Amino acid sequence: MSTISIIGAGSMATAIATRTAKAGHIVEVISRDPTKSQALADQLPGGATTGTYGAAPTGDIVILAVPYSGAASAVADFGKALGGKVIIDVANPVNADLSGLVTPAGSSGAQETAKGLPADAQIVKAFNTIFGHILAKGGNVDAFIAADDAEAKARVSTFLESLGLRPLDVGGLQMAQTLEALGLMMIGLAKNGAGSWDIAMKVDIG
Amino acid sequence: MSTISIIGAGSMATAIATRTAKAGHIVEVISRDPTKSQALADQLPGGATTGTYGAAPTGDIVILAVPYSGAASAVADFGKALGGKVIIDVANPVNADLSGLVTPAGSSGAQETAKGLPADAQIVKAFNTIFGHILAKGGNVDAFIAADDAEAKARVSTFLESLGLRPLDVGGLQMAQTLEALGLMMIGLAKNGAGSWDIAMKVDIG
Repeated sequence: MSTISIIGAGSMATAIATRTAKAGHIVEVISRDPTKSQALADQLPGGATTGTYGAAPTGDIVILAVPYSGAASAVADFGKALGGKVIIDVANPVNADLSGLVTPAGSSGAQETAKGLPADAQIVKAFNTIFGHILAKGGNVDAFIAADDAEAKARVSTFLESLGLRPLDVGGLQMAQTLEALGLMMIGLAKNGAGSWDIAMKVDIG
Repeated sequence: MSTISIIGAGSMATAIATRTAKAGHIVEVISRDPTKSQALADQLPGGATTGTYGAAPTGDIVILAVPYSGAASAVADFGKALGGKVIIDVANPVNADLSGLVTPAGSSGAQETAKGLPADAQIVKAFNTIFGHILAKGGNVDAFIAADDAEAKARVSTFLESLGLRPLDVGGLQMAQTLEALGLMMIGLAKNGAGSWDIAMKVDIG
């Protein structure tokens, strides 16, 4: 059991926070709007707390569960308060009509967001290939991760396993580009060939 | 049963040709090197033929199964002979050490290759998310496709189903970018989290 801090109080933050609390972790919810973080903390099992936006989070793992458009400013608002933390970036940097990515060529949302972090923070891309409502269902879903720091990746893998997910390492942080493309592909699949948003990507390993 | 033309005689061409022939289609193998196309045709069941490199293929569906580095020149060599055809592009445009994509920013291998096709040819991205040796095993694997032309996409879907695959439409041809990123991600997964090249991506639709 660990303390896991979550920045954000929207639908994805709620899905992750709920699953994390149900797994027995202490969840700290941090939002720019304290009424939203309190409302989310109140609905979680296991004695969730709220943190102060911009101050050092309690958890060693901090889940940045805000839209990509707000990620850079959130990271700036915390500044050195995120020093030494493992930051999980969950965003899918998609455009307004969900038809493409808004990231610069040759980069990813995770790599862009990482530019604003303290040098001793480690970013791990995770959760962006799992739709929030699928996460909320509670099944054993494949959770793809990408990061440069092996220790951070190992800690996030352990955390994901504690949630009943199967962590699958796709490589270094530059591979966040492929994970974000996969997030967009899943949206395309939901709209087209699957005809449903109730989808999850699974790897058959034979 | 249809005639399916395959340009290429390497490992991916062999895997697709074999599965296609086993499904009861007539396969026409076309290679720049006639001894290679003849050798592949000779090992296929069902009366496979060879075609003349650069001349009009017999099949209405033409599978361009050459590496991305050779795709533009192959398309140029055929020129108007590909008019009216449905072209399946299977390439993963990865760099030499399989760590990234070589395509221009905001484009895909399929979109680049399409630039050299006659205006009345239709390109469909398919097969690039299935490793050749997995295709050769014969199981029911998910086959993601992207294309702009609905009729061409429908015909390729029917063809994929005839091979015992499950076609899954992810959207227009620009989504070939996400499929090629997924191809790269699978390579990263094979090297890292899966620790095996015996992997296939599956969509759980629930």
